[in-house]
Amino acid sequence: MKILLIGGTGTIGKSVAEKLKLDHEVIIASKSNGDYKVDLTSVESIEKMYKDIPNIDAVISATGASRFSDLSELTPEINEIAINSKLKGQVNLVLVGQHYINEGGSFTLTTGIMMDDPILKGSSAAMANGAVAGFVKSAAIELKRNIRINTVSPNVLEESIDKFGAFFKGFNPVPADKVANAFVKSVEGAQTGQVYKVY
Amino acid sequence: MKILLIGGTGTIGKSVAEKLKLDHEVIIASKSNGDYKVDLTSVESIEKMYKDIPNIDAVISATGASRFSDLSELTPEINEIAINSKLKGQVNLVLVGQHYINEGGSFTLTTGIMMDDPILKGSSAAMANGAVAGFVKSAAIELKRNIRINTVSPNVLEESIDKFGAFFKGFNPVPADKVANAFVKSVEGAQTGQVYKVY
Repeated sequence: MKILLIGGTGTIGKSVAEKLKLDHEVIIASKSNGDYKVDLTSVESIEKMYKDIPNIDAVISATGASRFSDLSELTPEINEIAINSKLKGQVNLVLVGQHYINEGGSFTLTTGIMMDDPILKGSSAAMANGAVAGFVKSAAIELKRNIRINTVSPNVLEESIDKFGAFFKGFNPVPADKVANAFVKSVEGAQTGQVYKVY
Repeated sequence: MKILLIGGTGTIGKSVAEKLKLDHEVIIASKSNGDYKVDLTSVESIEKMYKDIPNIDAVISATGASRFSDLSELTPEINEIAINSKLKGQVNLVLVGQHYINEGGSFTLTTGIMMDDPILKGSSAAMANGAVAGFVKSAAIELKRNIRINTVSPNVLEESIDKFGAFFKGFNPVPADKVANAFVKSVEGAQTGQVYKVY
């Protein structure tokens, strides 16, 4: 398969790339590193990417920014970060990409545990995660040409616990390797409309 | 209680207003009718509303637009309708309003069955509904001054079956009166972080 992995330079993305590279061609796209530069907050940049990289079988998004903020300090403006990146970035990857990727291809997006098990400062991310999960479930019944779509919802990572542990007290961190397996399952399996919860 | 009902001129809104008016002061805001004109797609308009109408105990949103569209024809641009209205309109009502409404007050937003039980042409609405549900669950643990937040997720209405029945074949429509009760429960009860599913 020819796999386009967006955000392949992050902790999860690297682990996903390692696993998939054993059997597939993996092209890593990212805002600043990787094989191809793409800005998911720009529909034009997404469209150009699909034109520049034809014949894709699987699109994986292991990216999406959102700002951690106390709800009392979360302004509509700060909330736009999650809307533009984590939400619209990922949804537009599908809305545009559905017309480009190969028959029988797949999309796998990233959500996160905060939509199910909320944390302080997590409302903006929970909103974006909920949006992507709702979209994936609905888009799955409509995608044509046997194209599938799923999302992986990871818990906080063992590898990120130094950085994010204070936000996730009492959560049971999971290894990136286990999260990466959910992406592999989505790409290489046959399911669609699933939220793979790695909690 | 002094209750601000946004979208009080729609089928659900009218039924909610009827019930709540028996015991409370209900101010109806809407884009074009009602006691006060507000445009939820404008943060400035929302802010002005809260300044113009002080001492609110409960905010109800029974509104939010989204476009029904085949996924294959759903462009990022068309998807913006749901993002700006159903999603950001409702979320910003809370982000701004949390600083204005009375201690012990509440927000009640509207989602919908399509996020749980997807229909053709419903991806954009499912996305916005999922976003609002994720946000509500997370915001509930952070709102200060004993302010609560819930969302009501209605099935297709009996009253709207002539207009929307073709989209909801096989669904069991519910009366607006039953949906309105969920709003009353949210406003007059003590629960928070709930998605009241009237399916």
